[in-house]
Amino acid sequence: MPLKGLLIVVSAPSGTGKTTLCRMLLKEFKNMEFSVSYTTRPPRKGEVNGKDYFFVSREEFERMVEEGDFLEWANVYGNLYGTSKSQVLKALEEGKDILLDIDVQGALQVKKNLPEAVLIFIMPPSFEELEKRLRSRGTDSEEVIEKRLNVAKEEIKKAPFYDYIVVNDVLDVAFNKLKAIITAEKCKTERLKNQFDKLIKDRAIVELLKEAENV
Amino acid sequence: MPLKGLLIVVSAPSGTGKTTLCRMLLKEFKNMEFSVSYTTRPPRKGEVNGKDYFFVSREEFERMVEEGDFLEWANVYGNLYGTSKSQVLKALEEGKDILLDIDVQGALQVKKNLPEAVLIFIMPPSFEELEKRLRSRGTDSEEVIEKRLNVAKEEIKKAPFYDYIVVNDVLDVAFNKLKAIITAEKCKTERLKNQFDKLIKDRAIVELLKEAENV
Repeated sequence: MPLKGLLIVVSAPSGTGKTTLCRMLLKEFKNMEFSVSYTTRPPRKGEVNGKDYFFVSREEFERMVEEGDFLEWANVYGNLYGTSKSQVLKALEEGKDILLDIDVQGALQVKKNLPEAVLIFIMPPSFEELEKRLRSRGTDSEEVIEKRLNVAKEEIKKAPFYDYIVVNDVLDVAFNKLKAIITAEKCKTERLKNQFDKLIKDRAIVELLKEAENV
Repeated sequence: MPLKGLLIVVSAPSGTGKTTLCRMLLKEFKNMEFSVSYTTRPPRKGEVNGKDYFFVSREEFERMVEEGDFLEWANVYGNLYGTSKSQVLKALEEGKDILLDIDVQGALQVKKNLPEAVLIFIMPPSFEELEKRLRSRGTDSEEVIEKRLNVAKEEIKKAPFYDYIVVNDVLDVAFNKLKAIITAEKCKTERLKNQFDKLIKDRAIVELLKEAENV
């Protein structure tokens, strides 16, 4: 498929530093943007349609589900949330890199619906450290922290199904690895095949590569 | 296979800057070393056995060929040169990263014999630039330059069979891409599976990952 951009899917247990790392990625790669999800949840004060979410009716959402337009979708406490395949594909074809910050269930759905997606699991260095980070936020009750740790265990069991695993022990080291994964994916021959024209400005070289392709 | 190190195979047409880039890689990655080839060619003055080459008799070399010990081998003007599989595997199992700087024929042989090898093709930005670089060396005759350009054309036709393509237009940009490829390959789940123990110091997390592995 002639996708010019990369679809990067990042998942991590709560408290692993995913939000910070995603923000750093968006700052580093000017061509990268977050995917805007569709939701049936009513907009909160200040939320902008098409920027924070695409706010749609339940009927419209269900129609999109039936038409198979979601790369992934989920019911969260009665509200539906989903990532539109047509919208993501359009952005990728325009050459944008799209970042999806979603949970494990959603990530595996995306991989199934779009195998070209690059799945990265951010791993805490230890449960001890994860617990420490969750406590240091000071926002969650003991019960919530316990629950988050149990959810983390289930999520970590799915890490082997991701393409890459990055342990976030030292933030800069983890960020460097994320950057490297994106840079390397852009050098993959499989991804470049449709872009030889853009990559290499010499027609003679492009012709040789295309010739080999057709063998 | 529980290979702890990476086997990186780099090929490029003569004049593309491969030697410079390989030297930069060895300087950057302290754990990386060149593979030492076996050869039937007699040692030149100052060459050290086991460092520059392993110098062996034709009989010994042919025995190794029969035993299937070469990842790749070739006859170059009557002398035999080859990369020993058992030697490379030993180094990889010890956790070393091995760099192989070989031609296209050899690289494709390596991939066939060890699919875990990571093949990187360094591409000149254009034939014009390649010709300019070959001339600026001032070492080759017009005839040799013509020959090198023709060989380059045949080599470039094989680039689509490599895992990655890096265009060496600006040296630092190309080097950054090479570094990224190596860093990213080390984050690949497939490669990490056998190293969860080393990667993650928390037994509980390692156990969860292994559990998922066995599903």
